[in-house]
Amino acid sequence: MKRQIFVLGILFIALPLLGQDGRQKFASLGDFTLVSGEVIRDCRIGYRTFGQLNADKSNVILFPTWATGTTEQLQGNVGPGKLADSSKYFVILVDALANGVSSSPSNSRLQPRMQFPKITIRDMVNSQHQLLTRELGIQHVKAVMGISMGGMQTFQWIVSYPSFMDKAIPIVGSPRLAPYDLVLWKTEIDAIRKDPEWKDGNYTVNPATLQMAEFWVLIGETPQRYNQQTNRNDALKSLETDAQKPAPDAGDHLRQIEAMMSLDVSDAFGGDIEKAAAAVKAKLLVVVGTYDHVVTPGPARDFARLLGAEVLEFPSDCGHQTPACEEKTIVPRVAGFLRQ
Amino acid sequence: MKRQIFVLGILFIALPLLGQDGRQKFASLGDFTLVSGEVIRDCRIGYRTFGQLNADKSNVILFPTWATGTTEQLQGNVGPGKLADSSKYFVILVDALANGVSSSPSNSRLQPRMQFPKITIRDMVNSQHQLLTRELGIQHVKAVMGISMGGMQTFQWIVSYPSFMDKAIPIVGSPRLAPYDLVLWKTEIDAIRKDPEWKDGNYTVNPATLQMAEFWVLIGETPQRYNQQTNRNDALKSLETDAQKPAPDAGDHLRQIEAMMSLDVSDAFGGDIEKAAAAVKAKLLVVVGTYDHVVTPGPARDFARLLGAEVLEFPSDCGHQTPACEEKTIVPRVAGFLRQ
Repeated sequence: MKRQIFVLGILFIALPLLGQDGRQKFASLGDFTLVSGEVIRDCRIGYRTFGQLNADKSNVILFPTWATGTTEQLQGNVGPGKLADSSKYFVILVDALANGVSSSPSNSRLQPRMQFPKITIRDMVNSQHQLLTRELGIQHVKAVMGISMGGMQTFQWIVSYPSFMDKAIPIVGSPRLAPYDLVLWKTEIDAIRKDPEWKDGNYTVNPATLQMAEFWVLIGETPQRYNQQTNRNDALKSLETDAQKPAPDAGDHLRQIEAMMSLDVSDAFGGDIEKAAAAVKAKLLVVVGTYDHVVTPGPARDFARLLGAEVLEFPSDCGHQTPACEEKTIVPRVAGFLRQ
Repeated sequence: MKRQIFVLGILFIALPLLGQDGRQKFASLGDFTLVSGEVIRDCRIGYRTFGQLNADKSNVILFPTWATGTTEQLQGNVGPGKLADSSKYFVILVDALANGVSSSPSNSRLQPRMQFPKITIRDMVNSQHQLLTRELGIQHVKAVMGISMGGMQTFQWIVSYPSFMDKAIPIVGSPRLAPYDLVLWKTEIDAIRKDPEWKDGNYTVNPATLQMAEFWVLIGETPQRYNQQTNRNDALKSLETDAQKPAPDAGDHLRQIEAMMSLDVSDAFGGDIEKAAAAVKAKLLVVVGTYDHVVTPGPARDFARLLGAEVLEFPSDCGHQTPACEEKTIVPRVAGFLRQ
């Protein structure tokens, strides 16, 4: 009887937290200490849950956001026939640190703008581990999956917490960035910092929105695909239109870019990527695009080889748009991989 | 006898102009009227010649420069075993307008910096036509060839002056830019104009040199090739080094970028590309790189199809580096094409 009351008590506490309706929720982590030793004060993590957590909590999928992305945007990947099938799995979407929903330069009252400390992908993963283990009472998940920076977090998850998941599905992600990718992000940082609107981070107008729209055309998909879908008359016009759409806050973007550039899953292994791979226990399905110019596929492919993991590679002209572009192929492969 | 003296007189005047030693020379075109109606005052065109002009002047190859390039840099493509074999042909390299050698924002005394009028690829071609016909006494050439913006000038040449050449070899060039290419150049213009050093063109420090180095990494070759040739530690360091090398003057670069963006060989045909193609008399060998991200190959390929011209396409990871990268294949193909 005592035990039943205890279980009921747990349910009473847990059910509101584990709501299955996809509403935006927040967990407070208090003062959250980063790998650097710095602290995010009054740290909040945004998340949404979908589907039913089963009795033995064995059907959890954790799915963190891509760079500048939010769980609101990520919802389109949840549901029957989607990457994260919430009719089978209890899906937890998490807003990565500095995405403008979780604690970020743009929303921190105690550490606004560039007073917000620099973060790493490891910090994102650690904050999510704390969210799941301490706030949601989940000590193990069926799978971690993610797209782009979500795929980077997935690679870090399997190295930082090897026993935490059965499977992992990094999609157009990377265990540490290739030289080209480092230059890409450095270019974006310089565009933000060189913009006269930047004002050392004390901007009143969001800087470099035109440049971000330009880079997205140049890098976001292959030139082949862009040229097929655009004509000469519309190219520059649509650039101006894109630049006027609401854009992610530059300070938030900067902190997430720094996080991606800092990523190296081997950093806790003295830079030895083979040792990092040896620590992994999860079974992996690695999805890459051959002509992805945002997250070039080399490092993911190399790490998959070290693990003997399955690689699903798309040599199409979709580039970094591979997840959307090849959804019809990827979704059933992911479903099959999760069922195995 | 009178005729012999005339001929000797011509030789006397012509020989110093037609020197075969590759020295930098200049021709004065006086006030040169642009397609826009504006005028380049006191217009000078730089050029170099190599090899022997034969008696009937039937062995001339005209070879204009690429964007921001000079005839000094172009010399490496001249000589036996090179694109322009000066042991067989009389090779004329021409400095395109606004390249910093011919009349340019950086060297014009009467129209310095942004007082230098906007130019087009047609203006480059018209100035070269005037150089050859009026200054060098050449009314017809064996071939026009060029790389990148030189290839763009080549496409314009065959449409503007269809009877002037037997053959044309545009290499990684374009008859009018694809949508992607327009965005690329717009991005470079914005980087220059947004740089705080720009000061409306009255800069004392050359603006946006770091950004140009960055764009060159992102676009100048394929990510695949860059990642093969660079490691993570060197990527950002070599960017800083590149940014500190002497860079083309931003005002010159701007005027040449505008020229490339303005290019459309159909513009004298009411925008009808088929009519433009119908005007062409030259035989063409069109060289493109499938994964060229600086001058994407679509428009050159399409125009070649309209002409029934031969296309030499390289689906390698060289991108815009195809001319250097595939030199061993291209040079004999060009030699054979010129011999036909």
